[in-house]
Parts: sequence; C-alpha cells; structure tokens
Amino acid sequence: MLTYSSMDQEARREEYKKLSDAYAAYKERGLSLNMARGKPGAEQVSLSTGMLYVIPYNDDFKGEDCPDMRNYGGLDGIIEAKRIFADMLGVLPENIFVGGNSSLNMMFDTVACLMEQGAGAEPWNKQGNIKFLCPVPGYDRHFGITQYFGIEMINVPMTADGPDMDMVEKLVSSDSSIKGIWCTPKYSNPQGVTYSDETVRRFAALRPAAKDFRIMWDNAYAIHDINDTPDTLLNIFDEAKKNGTEDMILEFCSTSKITFPGAGVAAIAASENNLKLLKKRYTFQTIGYDKLNMYRHFLYFKNLDGVLAHMQKHREILEPRFNMVTSMLDKNLSGLDVATWTNPNGGYFVSVDVNKGCAKRVVALCKEAGVILTGAGATYPYGKDPEDSNIRIAPTYPPIEELELAMEIFCLSVKLAALEKLI
Amino acid sequence: MLTYSSMDQEARREEYKKLSDAYAAYKERGLSLNMARGKPGAEQVSLSTGMLYVIPYNDDFKGEDCPDMRNYGGLDGIIEAKRIFADMLGVLPENIFVGGNSSLNMMFDTVACLMEQGAGAEPWNKQGNIKFLCPVPGYDRHFGITQYFGIEMINVPMTADGPDMDMVEKLVSSDSSIKGIWCTPKYSNPQGVTYSDETVRRFAALRPAAKDFRIMWDNAYAIHDINDTPDTLLNIFDEAKKNGTEDMILEFCSTSKITFPGAGVAAIAASENNLKLLKKRYTFQTIGYDKLNMYRHFLYFKNLDGVLAHMQKHREILEPRFNMVTSMLDKNLSGLDVATWTNPNGGYFVSVDVNKGCAKRVVALCKEAGVILTGAGATYPYGKDPEDSNIRIAPTYPPIEELELAMEIFCLSVKLAALEKLI
Repeated sequence: MLTYSSMDQEARREEYKKLSDAYAAYKERGLSLNMARGKPGAEQVSLSTGMLYVIPYNDDFKGEDCPDMRNYGGLDGIIEAKRIFADMLGVLPENIFVGGNSSLNMMFDTVACLMEQGAGAEPWNKQGNIKFLCPVPGYDRHFGITQYFGIEMINVPMTADGPDMDMVEKLVSSDSSIKGIWCTPKYSNPQGVTYSDETVRRFAALRPAAKDFRIMWDNAYAIHDINDTPDTLLNIFDEAKKNGTEDMILEFCSTSKITFPGAGVAAIAASENNLKLLKKRYTFQTIGYDKLNMYRHFLYFKNLDGVLAHMQKHREILEPRFNMVTSMLDKNLSGLDVATWTNPNGGYFVSVDVNKGCAKRVVALCKEAGVILTGAGATYPYGKDPEDSNIRIAPTYPPIEELELAMEIFCLSVKLAALEKLI
Repeated sequence: MLTYSSMDQEARREEYKKLSDAYAAYKERGLSLNMARGKPGAEQVSLSTGMLYVIPYNDDFKGEDCPDMRNYGGLDGIIEAKRIFADMLGVLPENIFVGGNSSLNMMFDTVACLMEQGAGAEPWNKQGNIKFLCPVPGYDRHFGITQYFGIEMINVPMTADGPDMDMVEKLVSSDSSIKGIWCTPKYSNPQGVTYSDETVRRFAALRPAAKDFRIMWDNAYAIHDINDTPDTLLNIFDEAKKNGTEDMILEFCSTSKITFPGAGVAAIAASENNLKLLKKRYTFQTIGYDKLNMYRHFLYFKNLDGVLAHMQKHREILEPRFNMVTSMLDKNLSGLDVATWTNPNGGYFVSVDVNKGCAKRVVALCKEAGVILTGAGATYPYGKDPEDSNIRIAPTYPPIEELELAMEIFCLSVKLAALEKLI
C-alpha cells in the first residue's frame, strides 16, 4: 500500500471519501467510549475488594509501633506499611513517609513545602522567577502543579532512554533558577519509556547550579508490568549514594493502581534531611494519615511478595487490552506514514504521535464520533504541544469490546486528519 | 478554710510541708499518666469498630452520584456524605466539600490557598505583613498554622459569650491587614465556651476593612455534648445570609471525634464563591479523597439521626470523666483562691486558670510526678501565655481510675505552686 504522501490527489480523495463514509456510520451509532484517563477498569478494582474485609473481628488494632490504629498518632505512618513501600522502592523503612490516599497530593505538598520553606536556601517563592524541567510528553497533573505555583516550565524532549540528558545536564548546571525536574522513570506517562541505567546514573550524578534543586521521581508504575518482558529501572538512591546526592531526590509512589484509585495509600521515599524538611510542614498540616487503611493494606498483602502476586492479576487483565490497542494501530496505521506509537511493557498508556498539526483534529474527530481521548496538548506544559502531534491513549478503563471499537474510530480519525492536511 | 493569701507565713509553711510530703509520696510511685491531648479513649474508638465491617460483601459500590466508590472521581466527595454533614451544620449539601481524614488539614490547605490565590484580592502572601485574630486561650494547632505561614497573631480575650466582640469589631473594621480569625464556636478549645447568639450575630454582621477577611469557623464539637444541658450554637450561615456575608465564613468539621481520630472524614461548609476558590487549588492538589471511607460512614450512620444516636454513646463514656475532673477541682481547690475553672457541657477539655505566673510551674510539678499535661502556654499564640496562668486538661484519654489519680496530683501541684509564690 502506498503512503498517503506518495499518493496522488485523486487517490487521496477517493480514500478520504471511503473513510468518511465509514466514519459517518460510526457517528450515527451515538457511541460513548472513553480512553481519556489512566483509570483502572471495574475488573481491576474488583481484584482488591477482599481488602475491605481483611481486618479481623475483635482485632486489638495494635501495630508494632502503634498502640491503636484507630486513634491519633504516627505522623509518618505505621512501620508495617513503611516496610512494604521500602521493599518496593529498594530503600530503608526509615526513609519512607507513608501518607494519605494520593501521591499526587504528596507531590503537590512537597512543591508547596519547597515554595514556602526552601531546601537549605531561600524559599522558592522568595527567589523570583524559578523553573522546572519537564520531559515531554509527560503527565499533565505534574505540569498542573508547577503551573499552579507559577513555576516556569521548560520542555525537555524524551528519548527512548528517558529525558535528553545532554540537555538536562547543560541546563541544570548552568541555570540556578532551575529548581527541579518531573520524572516518571518507569513506564513513563504517556510513552511507557523506562529510563536506561545510564540515564539514572546521569540523574544521580547531576551537579546543579541550584543547591536547592530537586528531582521529583514519580515512580507511579514501579511494579506495573503488563507482559513477559518487563523493564527494569536502576535504583536511583543506590546511585545517589555513590555521588552523595541523596538530598537531590524525592521519590513518590502509591497503591492507587494496585488496590483502589482514591482509596489506596501513598508514600514518599527520601533522605533523612528531606524527610526532616517535609515533616516540618506536615507537623502543622495534619496530626496524621489514615492508619486503618495502611493496616488494611498490610494485612491484605503482608509483604512485597504479596503485592507482586497481586500485580500478576492486574497484568492478566491489562495485557490483552494493550495488545488490542497496539495490534489495532499495527493493522490500521502501519505503512501509511501517518503515525508512530509506543509498545510499552508496563504502565497505563500508549503514546501515539500523529502527523504534525493533526493531534487536535484527531481528538476532535474522535469526540464527534463519541470517543473521548485525553485533550491534545495535555501531555505538554501549559497544554501546548508545539508540534500538535502527541495523543495519549489510556486502554485500561473501557471494557475490551468497547476498546476495539474505540480504536477503530481512533485509527479512522488519524487517517482522516492526515488526508485533510494533504488534500 | 482560709485562702492561702489570707494565711500567715507560718500557716503557709505548714501547709506547704504537708502537701510536699503527699507530693513526694506520689512521685515515688513512678506514675505515667497523660492528660495532654484531646484524644478519645480506647472505649470511645471501640464504639465505631462496627463501621469497619459495614460494607456488604458483593456490594456494587455504586453511589447516587458515583459509579464506583472504589475508583477515581468526585473531587468534593459523595452526595451521601455531603448530606450528613449538611444536616449536621444546617447548610445545603451543595455547600459541602467532603475531604480526607483531617479537618486540620483542610484548614491548613485553606490558609495555604488564600496565601497563594487570595480571596478576590491580591494573594495574602503578596500583601506584606498580614494578621489573624486569635481568641485566647485557644487551640494550639490553629495557631501553629498561622505561625507556619508567617501570619502575625493578635490575642483577643475570650469571655463567657465567646471572643471579646467589641475588640474584634474595632480591630477588624479598622485594620485591613487583619485577614482572619480562628474560632471554635461550640465548646471552645480549651474552655468549652459556646458563643452566644449575640456573638454569632455580631460575627455574621462584621464589616471588615479587608475585603478578603475570613472567619475560620472550626465547628469541631458541633454535636459533642456531655450532659443533659447541652449548649446550642446559632447557625452562622443563616445569620450571614441576612447580612450578605456568606463569603466571609469558612466552616470546618470532621468525624475524628465521632468515629476514628485519624480515620474519620472531614468537611468544609462554604459559599459557592468560596468553594469555587478552594476547588481551584484542590483540582491541582488531588484527584479526590477516600470515597470508600465516606461510604463506610454513610452505611454505618445512614443520616444525622444515626450520628446523634452514636454521640449518646460517647456521652455515656465522657460524662463521668468530666464529672470526675470538675468534682476533683471543686473538692481540692475551691475556696483557696488558687484557681478558677470551666464546667463545660461538651467538647474535650476543662480549662483551668491558676494564679498568675504559676502555670509553667504546675505543669512542671505534674510532669515530675508522672502526669503529662498540655504544655503551659500552648493555648496561646507563639506558646506565650502573658499571664502564665492557663492550663488545658484533657480528660478523655486516660482510664477513669488514672484520671482520678492524675487529678489528685494536679490539684496538689496547683496548691504547691501557689504557696511557692506566696512564701
């Protein structure tokens, strides 16, 4: 088959007519399909329902370091939960702060803390214009936090090995107004890229001009493999130790996509200095987080092995969905020169780059036919994709039959948008 | 019996010797008793344990406005929980934002929001030195929040009717750098004072010089009566409506002292404008709070009547404790002119004013004999009680036998400290 760009205009028009008819037929069906958010499906959340019944009747609610899980006390969480997160991230329990139900909230609070208190220097909000590096495409809610606090965002392109480290090193070492970088180091949102060992080593070895520079290491998908060839991520704290840069790193994770989105448990892994800094704020902010929910998680999983066994069940649900998405892309779009896409081994997304200037149109065409995608541009700071080409597909939420249909419409829309540009 | 001040020196010395011997005997027992924090006792948290098992097996987890309580979605909480808080506070469900496990956290976030975004004016943190009025004695964690954000605190004396409203009106109407006031309007911490109808009306009718002035109405003990003669608090939003001042009020509450401290549910009641303002920040801060815990609360209580019936059980546990504290004070200290105290109808504290300059000494004497009290001064901004006389007693946590012993030692310490001053 010819690529659209090598077709003549007449052939393009013919193809466009054919695709438009198919599109119109879908449109008439009045569908309502959603591939917008990285939201676990109903089957997935059902996997953990047993956790809600795991606290034994007549329990004494005593923990190893907690006299009563039901009462006040324990700002940074129970030791039983700390151990599971510590093992998950390869750090010590004393480097873990277990929080509430949202790692996003902990990232928000962390940025707020650095804005208000600083990190061994003036508070960030007293330093005039400050900046964050934002590997793109990336996670819209990360960018939302920095935008909320008025922090200027600088795009850094992603490569197959993670962010462009030449650019990161150059910027970070030369500009002391650059205070941080957002990273989703494993199965990045949206591309599913896992940072290479070399990339992690270069992060740990950064020598920032700003002494109060922080790497926001959002390890949201640390154990979220979807097939037999999972990626592995180097432990950044191990590398940081070799460089004496532990204070530069703030790592985040949660069980939102392990147990319940919205009723899971989140945690921070950080150096002693950073934990001290964060607790200075948390002490005023709250008396402590929900220990009963931490306790439920502990009783249900017991340890990291328990969590990993549980992740296998998620994988069984997710693998066919991701296969469906990538096989539909292969079948419908390969060879046409209208899009490239990722084929991740884990995480929650497939990232599609359509032809330059076509992403918004694709999203609009999908919407008209009843398929909701993440807004075009959302994967970039300020919602502005300079190429207007990246689209994030979230295959987890819709039932698999709907997913197939949604992907049919998506592929059709990609082709239509490409042809519209050419005709 | 003579008051200590009317005794001659010799009689004082004799009394002091007698009391010192008794004190020494207690000291030798190596006790460890705690009346420091407003923390429910073990019996109280056990009242709600059934709530942990209330979600039915094979539940569909659907709510009226929530397709799946276990999944993401619903920034401001589920309607079922909103209704209960709305009825508790006498507002409409659409004026409720249900949050996480801590109303303190919601107050902290609210002050942070106003610091960063302002309230229809420049952000508070862009307005130079700003101030809050702090009715004293008051809640140390309120003062902690304003201190954390660098907001200057001005003491306003409490009266039997609430804060000195002449002073509040005068300051608020004349100084536009005064941006807020902390209030615990019902069973105030630590005195157990409920603001009179007149006080509530004057609050609702305030005409602040600062257009972005906010009343932080922490209704922590809204339904926390402990005897047959409960106080009633006028609904401030009803009064505010008459004055068109709804935007001036932010009301907070939680179930921390209804169900589980640390695993309860917190809420804000606010005007449409204020909710819009707060949500502008919450949207960046989190995807949403723990709806499963809201759901548990709803299933367990069903409605406000369910909550009120539950509060009767708390009352049965608390009434004898408060009676013990006040009867020990009556028995040991009345007529000596060494202390005055409150006799509240609800809440979590008894407030004792010892002779000027004696509070620190009393707390130290208690500590030496194994009785931990809230630090002297904690009930004042910056931990500084200008009279060094207020002590907060929290009778809820220790078992009642311990409470009696702790109160023996407390009363002894009050007398010793008073005599030391006089001799």
